[in-house]
Amino acid sequence: MTAPTEPIRAPRGSTLSARSWQTEAPLRMLMNNLDPEVAERPQDLVVYGGSGRAARSWPAYHAIVRTLRTLGPEETLLVQSGKPVGVLATHEWAPRVLIANSNLVGDWASWPEFRKLEHLGLMMYGQMTAGSWIYIGTQGILQGTYETFAAVAAKRFNGTLAGTLTLTAGCGGMGGAQPLAVTMNDGACLIIDVDRTRLQRRVDTRYLDTIAADLDEGIALAVQAKKDRRALSVGVVGNAATLVPEILRRGVPVDIVTDQTSAHDPLSYLPEGIDPGDAPDYAAKKPEEFTDRARAAMAKHVEAMVGFLDAGAEVFDYGNSIRGEAQLGGYDRAFAFPGFVPAYIRPLFCEGKGPFRWAALSGDPADIHTTDRAILDLFPDNEQLGRWIRMAGERVAFQGLPARICWLGYGERARAGARFNEMVADCRLSAPVVIGRDHLDSGSVASPYRETEGMADGSDAIADWPLLNALVNTSSGATWVSIHHGGGVGMGRSIHAGQVTVADGTPLAAAKLDRVLTNDPAMGVIRHVDAGYELAEHVAERDGLRIPMREGDVQ
Amino acid sequence: MTAPTEPIRAPRGSTLSARSWQTEAPLRMLMNNLDPEVAERPQDLVVYGGSGRAARSWPAYHAIVRTLRTLGPEETLLVQSGKPVGVLATHEWAPRVLIANSNLVGDWASWPEFRKLEHLGLMMYGQMTAGSWIYIGTQGILQGTYETFAAVAAKRFNGTLAGTLTLTAGCGGMGGAQPLAVTMNDGACLIIDVDRTRLQRRVDTRYLDTIAADLDEGIALAVQAKKDRRALSVGVVGNAATLVPEILRRGVPVDIVTDQTSAHDPLSYLPEGIDPGDAPDYAAKKPEEFTDRARAAMAKHVEAMVGFLDAGAEVFDYGNSIRGEAQLGGYDRAFAFPGFVPAYIRPLFCEGKGPFRWAALSGDPADIHTTDRAILDLFPDNEQLGRWIRMAGERVAFQGLPARICWLGYGERARAGARFNEMVADCRLSAPVVIGRDHLDSGSVASPYRETEGMADGSDAIADWPLLNALVNTSSGATWVSIHHGGGVGMGRSIHAGQVTVADGTPLAAAKLDRVLTNDPAMGVIRHVDAGYELAEHVAERDGLRIPMREGDVQ
Ligand SMILES: NC(=O)c1ccc[n+]([C@@H]2O[C@H](COP(=O)([O-])OP(=O)(O)OC[C@H]3O[C@@H](n4cnc5c(N)ncnc54)[C@H](O)[C@@H]3O)[C@@H](O)[C@H]2O)c1
Ligand SMILES: NC(=O)c1ccc[n+]([C@@H]2O[C@H](COP(=O)([O-])OP(=O)(O)OC[C@H]3O[C@@H](n4cnc5c(N)ncnc54)[C@H](O)[C@@H]3O)[C@@H](O)[C@H]2O)c1
Repeated sequence: MTAPTEPIRAPRGSTLSARSWQTEAPLRMLMNNLDPEVAERPQDLVVYGGSGRAARSWPAYHAIVRTLRTLGPEETLLVQSGKPVGVLATHEWAPRVLIANSNLVGDWASWPEFRKLEHLGLMMYGQMTAGSWIYIGTQGILQGTYETFAAVAAKRFNGTLAGTLTLTAGCGGMGGAQPLAVTMNDGACLIIDVDRTRLQRRVDTRYLDTIAADLDEGIALAVQAKKDRRALSVGVVGNAATLVPEILRRGVPVDIVTDQTSAHDPLSYLPEGIDPGDAPDYAAKKPEEFTDRARAAMAKHVEAMVGFLDAGAEVFDYGNSIRGEAQLGGYDRAFAFPGFVPAYIRPLFCEGKGPFRWAALSGDPADIHTTDRAILDLFPDNEQLGRWIRMAGERVAFQGLPARICWLGYGERARAGARFNEMVADCRLSAPVVIGRDHLDSGSVASPYRETEGMADGSDAIADWPLLNALVNTSSGATWVSIHHGGGVGMGRSIHAGQVTVADGTPLAAAKLDRVLTNDPAMGVIRHVDAGYELAEHVAERDGLRIPMREGDVQ
Repeated sequence: MTAPTEPIRAPRGSTLSARSWQTEAPLRMLMNNLDPEVAERPQDLVVYGGSGRAARSWPAYHAIVRTLRTLGPEETLLVQSGKPVGVLATHEWAPRVLIANSNLVGDWASWPEFRKLEHLGLMMYGQMTAGSWIYIGTQGILQGTYETFAAVAAKRFNGTLAGTLTLTAGCGGMGGAQPLAVTMNDGACLIIDVDRTRLQRRVDTRYLDTIAADLDEGIALAVQAKKDRRALSVGVVGNAATLVPEILRRGVPVDIVTDQTSAHDPLSYLPEGIDPGDAPDYAAKKPEEFTDRARAAMAKHVEAMVGFLDAGAEVFDYGNSIRGEAQLGGYDRAFAFPGFVPAYIRPLFCEGKGPFRWAALSGDPADIHTTDRAILDLFPDNEQLGRWIRMAGERVAFQGLPARICWLGYGERARAGARFNEMVADCRLSAPVVIGRDHLDSGSVASPYRETEGMADGSDAIADWPLLNALVNTSSGATWVSIHHGGGVGMGRSIHAGQVTVADGTPLAAAKLDRVLTNDPAMGVIRHVDAGYELAEHVAERDGLRIPMREGDVQ
């Protein structure tokens, strides 16, 4: 069975094709993940992130759809690596769908084993939100990048990037969010990419303001914007291994340095002196030589980044492993600057802050605009949030069902959920919304190379936490819950959990949302209390979160 | 904080020390796991299986107890590797305790990483039922062994071992259950152990009938019992590598051959010509020489087992890796006979059959005798079950809270649960009972060296199944649910889940038990349907289990 001839698109409006919103919601969100506006390769069921799939096969997809259409209010559908394997009688507080994707026993948790099983038709790769049916397109990446730069601003620049200059490289699928994320934080940004077409695409989508004719012009424009405290992003074509040292040498007043070239794979990072058009062929024919030259280039690149660090700039690794590759390339101070999670994101995690997202099942953009106003109304004092919501409203084009994402913390998420449910109940929204999140969240992932890198107590690799997170959401009334392996950083390197809950305007949904949106971020606070973070202890105490080891007399 | 000065013993009777039976039950079962009658090393919180713990530390133990005493009917306690980390508001159908023990991200799923984290005080090893508070002493091992031999009988000998002779070796902690398990199945058994004290201990506890003066007498007694169709177990002192080939050479009419010497560790299996008393010293001083000689001995031992196979006997590996070691010892037909799970247990798993167990919270043995009668009454046609229940009643001494175990399948478990709950309600039982199981069950474990070895479709290492099992039980009303890593076979080699549900006589408990005891074994049936086992397909069809891929038109 091959792909359907018609592109998949979730039903819109308020007419149900399933028996209730509790099952209509996962149905629409599964379909939405495969909408051509949303998915990278819908014909292969691939949503994003290399090979992250929404369902294992077309027969599996059709069987899920068929089952959701008739699933009852006290039934639960089980999905094993993208294939529906059973329907069981549960109860009305239980999730309607339970999902486990890509999980392997530890000694077999590798790409070769996974590929073997995938080839046998026994598994699929679920990434984070592909197999858990809550991907919302590139807005998620933009928002995560915005949040990171906002955290940099908060830590070092009094809460704004106005008057600062950020230097970065890599304007690809994920890195291309950087220039807009910087300008949304009111900063100036100089971004290098070796491939002009990548920069041009971002100009076309208004993520990048302009491409400079050459390095001189690029520097001049960016420095002037910094002086004027003006938001501006400028692209420069060139190899970062050449240009970053040159910019350092010239003493350009750079405040922030990072990088999102494809450094995770030394066959993707371009060595100096190679044209982007020639690279694939060269990499294929002489992979070892290419790798050696790429690593040598990364060593130069990172050495210059450390030069900026020594000169007083804020420097961080943006999750692409460039430090490790530069070290392999022979540069021994590569780890002088930190990864972005320990540097900026962990304090947010300590407050249970993470990527709260929602989608309007009506398909009506007006519903999202209404929720945007509700968020502004609920959190009038959160300037950073307000700026994001306003700019997103102007700048972000919806893909598939209209959706929004913003980072909210413990307490805040439950308030937003309650409000959205009220708005469905009193028809301010034209149909229910779903509220979910990425698996990258404060209490839902163990990933020692990214989200849990450098935990204060050394507990980076402990996977009890995401599993408890999944069990807690299952115990709290989430509509669907998922446990995945290998998202973001690959097989053997992460275990993570997700939840999506429907706000259908009923009192039951209100009760469920209150539990889920309280307990889910609570797991993040608890996890960080356990690791010894004072900020998390403070939040737990402030909000009366119960931590048994801190209660009662020590016996 | 060190161990309490008084030994721990669960409260008995029907007076609550917690707020309800939903929390009294985990409280008593945690304590029961640490009762000196039950636990191997209670002072170290070690219950069984090397270092399987009930709680991470004494402060953690006390905090769990304190929290369970006050936990409300809509609250849930979270336990991370034996330490209570949070209390959250959930709902009355949610579990009262959620447990994740010893889980590590794949690339870190090894003993050295685990030991490092354990040493930092961040983890504990939960084994299967130690950290999930439902260990019931050695009865579990006896019953599992009984069930295995019953399955051998069913497969090959018309349902009884009467008139058969079983040859085995290894009469230690686990292997010592073999002679009684064979005689409970009405067979004759000849068991070899190099260490006379091991045989003697089993005579003292009535697991072994007699020790023969020498091999000649042993063979004579056993063969005569076989002729007379009499149940009899006979121990013989000697090295299996010497005696098994000798028994083959003599043409003794052996029907079944297995082994439970400590072959998993070549420093524990005795080479020929070594006295048990001298072995530890020799192994410590010359580990490589010892290993080589042990493997050579295992090669001889397994070669003789294959000789019996060629002569028509039923031969199997009982989970001690003797085939692998014999292969390393140079014998190339070592894998000519199968492991016990694919050979006998998998067909039971296909029917959702697994180790159903329950404990009387009253502490009154009469309650278990009452439930024994209920089981006999519920399943009058199941002779094998009846024989076990009657013999267990006579032969098994309770350890800690009186408990019983027997293997029941899909459908049967729910019926037993319903009956027990009725009996609590109408006071035929003096207090509630808990109903749980080992993590070794039909749909709750991924363990490629044991429970999921040699799955028909090659899905041995896929861990989605035990995770779905935990999510399903959490969605069905279980009282506590656990996800563990590394039980039975060690770090990196297994992922498994458990559940325990309280029968407190209320209608709510009846509804929960019905869901849990239906869905939990249903996971086993579904898992085996998915792997292509016809027997499982038959059960699913017979009992109307919904498998979405088998419904609707193929599109
Ligand atoms: N921080 C996170 O959470 C996170 C998440 C996902 C991915 N990543 C990492 O971020 C990196 C970028 O991801 P992406 O999706 O944008 O990748 P991509 O392949 O789409 O883009 C990489 C870009 O780098 C450019 N490039 C390569 N070598 C260069 C060089 N020497 N000089 C200048 N430009 C060069 C390429 O032309 C391309 O435009 C990856 O390494 C990825 O693993 C991080
Ligand atoms: N089937 C299962 O599910 C399962 C479960 C747990 C353990 N096991 C395996 O079963 C084996 C036995 O476990 P145990 O707890 O009884 O171990 P144990 O160490 O308590 O007993 C092993 C016995 O083997 C005897 N022995 C050693 N070498 C011998 C030789 N050459 N000839 C005769 N006797 C010899 C020892 O004297 C000892 O009595 C182990 O390998 C264990 O890994 C299987």
